[in-house]
Amino acid sequence: MKVHTIGGYEEVGRNMTAVETNGETVIFDMGYEMEEVIGADGEVNEMTTNETLETGAIPKDKQIMHNDVRAIVIGHGHLDHVGAIPKLAGAYDCPIVCTPYTKKIVEKQLEDDRKNIDNPVIAVEKGEDYTISDNLSLEFMHVNHSIPQATLSLLKTPEGNVVYGNDMKIDQSPVGEETTDVERLKKAGREGVKVMIPGTTRVDSEGRCRSEESVAVELKDVLDSCYQAGGAVILTTFSSQIARLNSVIEANEGRRKIAFVGRSLKEYTKAAEDLGLIDLTDVEVVSYFNECKELMDKVDGAREDWLVVATGNQGEPGAQMDKIASGTYPFDFREGDHVIFSSQVIPTPLTQANRYSLEKKMKEQGVRMYKEIHTSGHAKREDHRDFIQHMDPENIVPSHGDIQKLGSYVELAREEGYSLEEDVFIGENGRTIEIE
Amino acid sequence: MKVHTIGGYEEVGRNMTAVETNGETVIFDMGYEMEEVIGADGEVNEMTTNETLETGAIPKDKQIMHNDVRAIVIGHGHLDHVGAIPKLAGAYDCPIVCTPYTKKIVEKQLEDDRKNIDNPVIAVEKGEDYTISDNLSLEFMHVNHSIPQATLSLLKTPEGNVVYGNDMKIDQSPVGEETTDVERLKKAGREGVKVMIPGTTRVDSEGRCRSEESVAVELKDVLDSCYQAGGAVILTTFSSQIARLNSVIEANEGRRKIAFVGRSLKEYTKAAEDLGLIDLTDVEVVSYFNECKELMDKVDGAREDWLVVATGNQGEPGAQMDKIASGTYPFDFREGDHVIFSSQVIPTPLTQANRYSLEKKMKEQGVRMYKEIHTSGHAKREDHRDFIQHMDPENIVPSHGDIQKLGSYVELAREEGYSLEEDVFIGENGRTIEIE
Amino acid sequence: MKVHTIGGYEEVGRNMTAVETNGETVIFDMGYEMEEVIGADGEVNEMTTNETLETGAIPKDKQIMHNDVRAIVIGHGHLDHVGAIPKLAGAYDCPIVCTPYTKKIVEKQLEDDRKNIDNPVIAVEKGEDYTISDNLSLEFMHVNHSIPQATLSLLKTPEGNVVYGNDMKIDQSPVGEETTDVERLKKAGREGVKVMIPGTTRVDSEGRCRSEESVAVELKDVLDSCYQAGGAVILTTFSSQIARLNSVIEANEGRRKIAFVGRSLKEYTKAAEDLGLIDLTDVEVVSYFNECKELMDKVDGAREDWLVVATGNQGEPGAQMDKIASGTYPFDFREGDHVIFSSQVIPTPLTQANRYSLEKKMKEQGVRMYKEIHTSGHAKREDHRDFIQHMDPENIVPSHGDIQKLGSYVELAREEGYSLEEDVFIGENGRTIEIE
Amino acid sequence: MKVHTIGGYEEVGRNMTAVETNGETVIFDMGYEMEEVIGADGEVNEMTTNETLETGAIPKDKQIMHNDVRAIVIGHGHLDHVGAIPKLAGAYDCPIVCTPYTKKIVEKQLEDDRKNIDNPVIAVEKGEDYTISDNLSLEFMHVNHSIPQATLSLLKTPEGNVVYGNDMKIDQSPVGEETTDVERLKKAGREGVKVMIPGTTRVDSEGRCRSEESVAVELKDVLDSCYQAGGAVILTTFSSQIARLNSVIEANEGRRKIAFVGRSLKEYTKAAEDLGLIDLTDVEVVSYFNECKELMDKVDGAREDWLVVATGNQGEPGAQMDKIASGTYPFDFREGDHVIFSSQVIPTPLTQANRYSLEKKMKEQGVRMYKEIHTSGHAKREDHRDFIQHMDPENIVPSHGDIQKLGSYVELAREEGYSLEEDVFIGENGRTIEIE
Repeated sequence: MKVHTIGGYEEVGRNMTAVETNGETVIFDMGYEMEEVIGADGEVNEMTTNETLETGAIPKDKQIMHNDVRAIVIGHGHLDHVGAIPKLAGAYDCPIVCTPYTKKIVEKQLEDDRKNIDNPVIAVEKGEDYTISDNLSLEFMHVNHSIPQATLSLLKTPEGNVVYGNDMKIDQSPVGEETTDVERLKKAGREGVKVMIPGTTRVDSEGRCRSEESVAVELKDVLDSCYQAGGAVILTTFSSQIARLNSVIEANEGRRKIAFVGRSLKEYTKAAEDLGLIDLTDVEVVSYFNECKELMDKVDGAREDWLVVATGNQGEPGAQMDKIASGTYPFDFREGDHVIFSSQVIPTPLTQANRYSLEKKMKEQGVRMYKEIHTSGHAKREDHRDFIQHMDPENIVPSHGDIQKLGSYVELAREEGYSLEEDVFIGENGRTIEIE
Repeated sequence: MKVHTIGGYEEVGRNMTAVETNGETVIFDMGYEMEEVIGADGEVNEMTTNETLETGAIPKDKQIMHNDVRAIVIGHGHLDHVGAIPKLAGAYDCPIVCTPYTKKIVEKQLEDDRKNIDNPVIAVEKGEDYTISDNLSLEFMHVNHSIPQATLSLLKTPEGNVVYGNDMKIDQSPVGEETTDVERLKKAGREGVKVMIPGTTRVDSEGRCRSEESVAVELKDVLDSCYQAGGAVILTTFSSQIARLNSVIEANEGRRKIAFVGRSLKEYTKAAEDLGLIDLTDVEVVSYFNECKELMDKVDGAREDWLVVATGNQGEPGAQMDKIASGTYPFDFREGDHVIFSSQVIPTPLTQANRYSLEKKMKEQGVRMYKEIHTSGHAKREDHRDFIQHMDPENIVPSHGDIQKLGSYVELAREEGYSLEEDVFIGENGRTIEIE
Repeated sequence: MKVHTIGGYEEVGRNMTAVETNGETVIFDMGYEMEEVIGADGEVNEMTTNETLETGAIPKDKQIMHNDVRAIVIGHGHLDHVGAIPKLAGAYDCPIVCTPYTKKIVEKQLEDDRKNIDNPVIAVEKGEDYTISDNLSLEFMHVNHSIPQATLSLLKTPEGNVVYGNDMKIDQSPVGEETTDVERLKKAGREGVKVMIPGTTRVDSEGRCRSEESVAVELKDVLDSCYQAGGAVILTTFSSQIARLNSVIEANEGRRKIAFVGRSLKEYTKAAEDLGLIDLTDVEVVSYFNECKELMDKVDGAREDWLVVATGNQGEPGAQMDKIASGTYPFDFREGDHVIFSSQVIPTPLTQANRYSLEKKMKEQGVRMYKEIHTSGHAKREDHRDFIQHMDPENIVPSHGDIQKLGSYVELAREEGYSLEEDVFIGENGRTIEIE
Repeated sequence: MKVHTIGGYEEVGRNMTAVETNGETVIFDMGYEMEEVIGADGEVNEMTTNETLETGAIPKDKQIMHNDVRAIVIGHGHLDHVGAIPKLAGAYDCPIVCTPYTKKIVEKQLEDDRKNIDNPVIAVEKGEDYTISDNLSLEFMHVNHSIPQATLSLLKTPEGNVVYGNDMKIDQSPVGEETTDVERLKKAGREGVKVMIPGTTRVDSEGRCRSEESVAVELKDVLDSCYQAGGAVILTTFSSQIARLNSVIEANEGRRKIAFVGRSLKEYTKAAEDLGLIDLTDVEVVSYFNECKELMDKVDGAREDWLVVATGNQGEPGAQMDKIASGTYPFDFREGDHVIFSSQVIPTPLTQANRYSLEKKMKEQGVRMYKEIHTSGHAKREDHRDFIQHMDPENIVPSHGDIQKLGSYVELAREEGYSLEEDVFIGENGRTIEIE
């Protein structure tokens, strides 16, 4: 069996891995490297595949271009996992397989990019068996992450089973979903796992990842404080964080009218509503400029009637938080208004500068800010140890990180008895690892 | 009116402030500077007052030694507020006034020190009015901190009211007590506050302090994970954190037998039990060496039957965590055992080294660790802003911090309209501030 | 005597302090707050004084607007000391007094701003006595900083002498000038100093500031390495750092032709050349776009013949380093070319993002980078202690910093025997401190 | 050819690597892991090899225990390269080969340990050819580090040449020695290097390492300041840093009498004196308790006559700096005395706590401190790039670091065209890497 480490092995982002066995290949994920997408000279959607490859925004997949690829399996709907599909999937004559919520996001990606991609997109529910070919089949196992319907993919092959799970955690108190299906994982372990390919984004943090429920309590505490103090309240979070948005709606307890403001919020929540994952009945969702303007005008006149949830938690120029803080709309912050960041700042200088500028504007207007009311969607060190112990894989190829993060995972694996280049491997974009 | 800033104005610790009005003086707090207590050559309990003064472990109170002191008011029972009582109180012919739980701690301090101190210790319930003299009276207002029965002291004087609250926060979801009595605070504000003397320990942190309930959820999540994985589970926290201990008992849900191990745990929890603040019926509490040894022997033989709560969360040499990790007892850690730190490391090099040594020992034995399952007991920036807005004091003298922390508070006060040395003042140990 | 702390007491920047004695007032410095200048909506040079005041870019001087101001004394030519002159000086009917090099910079400022300012600008050599009024006279004492002819101003008044020195250090091995005139300082001390007003920018750093000569050695080492490796070599530093530029010329040892590229480099070095402070005979100095383009074209064709010194060490968009890295000129970096940053990054998120973007561009082109070949121009803690000990002032008003930095200075002053609000004071923009 | 990565591949310390070719093996270095040596229960010198192995203080060499080892080559005399010789060398029937200064240190190690080790220790000058066997020969190439006579070892084998250089840098302005012999390195490159095994300790720092001469200038600046201010001056540095000690002697310019205080200072400097590397004629060197006591007594009485250089720069309890600060000797610090740390703090919590305690003691006595007057002995990123470019090795096995540091080197190697597990490899203690 060969594991092709194509993208996401020298960076956090542009994930792409392929597993080759008996002449058949399955691709896992096709994602963006977000900083390069943002830094590109121009709109990535408008670029050709070759232009995009040059920017470094998508994985360089030439090492498997002549393989017999039977399926493109997408673990969940974040852009660092689905973003490159419009650019790369067309070259492979095979279906794209994912859970129903992920399917909606993939289809939106394809629609926005307007390339002629005709790979069928097949929705498979967790726990179902999907036949890829005579020799290969696939099952999605339920895990927690920070977007609905994230999965660990279990690929069954004649050479043994492969578990691919680039982003996941074990949340003991999740919101709106079950805890990671530990029993299924243990069963997979008992059936035998030839190779596990886990993400490493947070393996360098000790302990376990905090639960969504713990954040929900904190969120309600902050909201209560804000409501008691009075003034406008604006909250911003990641648009795909449907559980968090549900926590916001619940914490509000009907005290204020809720508005979701921004295009990505609309897209992700509408997709979630279609699948019954969120109830938007009492939420006003706006995205076009005039809609937003009208809404914010209403908020300005009745600031204590509204809880506004807006896009732009990283301070991205042009996103809704930036627009609101810059006076783009007929809304002005007043001393004592509140802004809640239910997110963390992505630690790159460019993002930090954006957030700094946004916060500076708001601070000058007397806004009170509450930050990092948030938990990550990524397993930390002890969660990762659980994944290893539950599935006891013969080999591990850590993914989704630069060599420092992959190395941190190796240190953990050593504690669990693995040895470098014997049964735990450090990938490199373009490397092919042979598993005996 | 004069505010004497005696201790805790150039450091975090050894708090002591005195308010003088019309010839009468009231002292607030008499605390230790813990690093100097630990670093002293010898046992502080065995030292004379003058010896202790030289170490820098207690406040230098000579600036009020000839004042007519009518009361020593203690805000709560932490050592940086009560530790110096056995050394300093005897010089003042007046009672020590505090809440019932604090009284128990003060009495224990006096007993341990065995100096001949005969100041009466008077317990006053929150909300009651205590008459200090013809001109002065006192009311304790309820606030949240990280120990039972912490208070904001409201001293009523002919020159106006004084609010002293060295350590406090507003917890929207506390455990085992009510949220800070905001209505009472606002009423105090309406009645007029001449001077407010708030602590500044965390004013340099943005936002608000997380609630105990949010930590309780996280604690239960971690405990669930540990129980599922199996093995011994040992938790350590601050002994006076009765709310946290209640959260531990509740999170356990009767799944394991609980033992409290260590002298200070015994003292603080027994005092709490006397006042109905914790139920120890199903908890085995041990403190003498042989008791601890016997208990840990039992745990060694039935490690999955017990949840051990031990002292020594900072890795203090000789405390229970250190003893347990060092093989002092007939108990050995095994690979996969768990240790939960429901605390944070005090950021001084000596403590960090102690914790590092403790963790190194445990890591070498294969212990899995979970850290900082914790929230602070101190108001952060936006909590402090609330205190200002609720009470609208005419003057503020920030306390309990070095000049950097006092300065951070001044920056906040400026945002709320105060000006340096007009109505917000920076104290210095030994300074006397005249309030007009 | 009154010390009006007008600007630079809540920030690093927009320095302005005034000393009032017997009805006469002397202003020290009128500077910019650079971040606000950069962040302003529009070109500050084009704004009116009132518009500029609103941005927060210049000091708010209303507290002395009706004073009898007899002189505006400028300590040295950096923008945080001279930038606001075109906006504020016109309101005072008095001369601007400074050293000859500073005079050239002030005149350039006035010329660029094109407001009708007719205050005479008077150049006074260090060591000379300048009569301000019947009662007041001034002497500039020599100190090291990071620009030529920086001074400590000694103002002689009937109420005692005032020493104002906002930016200074003691360099034991300076380049192109003498060490701070310690003997003159000690003499000032013996004559008596009523108030000293020192800057605090680096007082929170321990030890002493490294010398220019020590940096010169490091600079030559790096240059030697670059020349040995071959390829283009581009260096960037602060344009007013004439000593550093002299070190560069010397380290080059005639091995390559030198070009200075950029408008501010031209201005500051031409002014220095006029006063004999730098020899530009063998340096090609270019600033207009076409000149720069032509020069860089030559460098591209003969990259090992040139040592280019360019503006833009902070990665400022549009400055020469940014232009060079972005392909604005007919010059392309090749793998193995070298860029030397003889400067440090100003630690604000916006600057850090600019530098990150610049470095990212260069890294993608294979440029080798050498950073922080630099020393500060600001006294560190032990240098400051020397200033105190040399002059033994009766009172100190630390300046040029936010409350954290002013507070750090107070901690130092305490070690030297001063007490807060007795003989060491914390200013606030708008505060007036009475000195008895 | 096989490269056995035995020690120093999961930590900084206990270096040991072996190269096997045609049935013959050469060992490079046998070092201590210092933290484990310090943390061991007991004196390592008194332990058996097996006891020491259990502490983790020395490399686990079982993977080559049955190899035909022909030589043990020691690169330089630091303990992380020579410390384990007394424990491990005896098992191999072969000579220990090193430069003359290293030989003196090895012999001292053997003497202190008093095990029966009878491997001959052979001194080989740099540039000479030493014949190991019919097939193997060795040449030491000159490099700079932070101890005299550090080397890059060039092992010539029928399968190609091996370059081992665990610690080294390129110093353009060294003190008391030549710059790394770049011409010899380039020649080695032209002759062909099959494998290079470089240290990685500082590869994660950008740029180049500062020169000793640049530090010498800074040292003299600080010394000048101290002498001008008066009072006692005590300096502490690493005892093996002979170049630094020479800089100290030179900076003193005969102004004060110099004393070297401490056992390791005596050992390292006496060894250096024997080889003409330092002139101790005018230095009083003391090490026994009574000698030190007597010397410090003299200093106490004539504090401005002496410049004391003492061991214990890390604040090690019991070392001379600790003794001096703790009043062990009849010497008391006075306000205004000076202590210069010509070293950096090793960033582990235990060392940081030691230094903190030492500095706290001195601060309480009014000592002025000057820290990090120092440069590292380890190549930084651009120095490492030079080593790669000069020798253009076919394969690289980075050493002397944990997986994070090895990974940082891999990132550099990628920039130079190498690929993971093709021609650049990540070792692991116990791994054997096959080089084709």
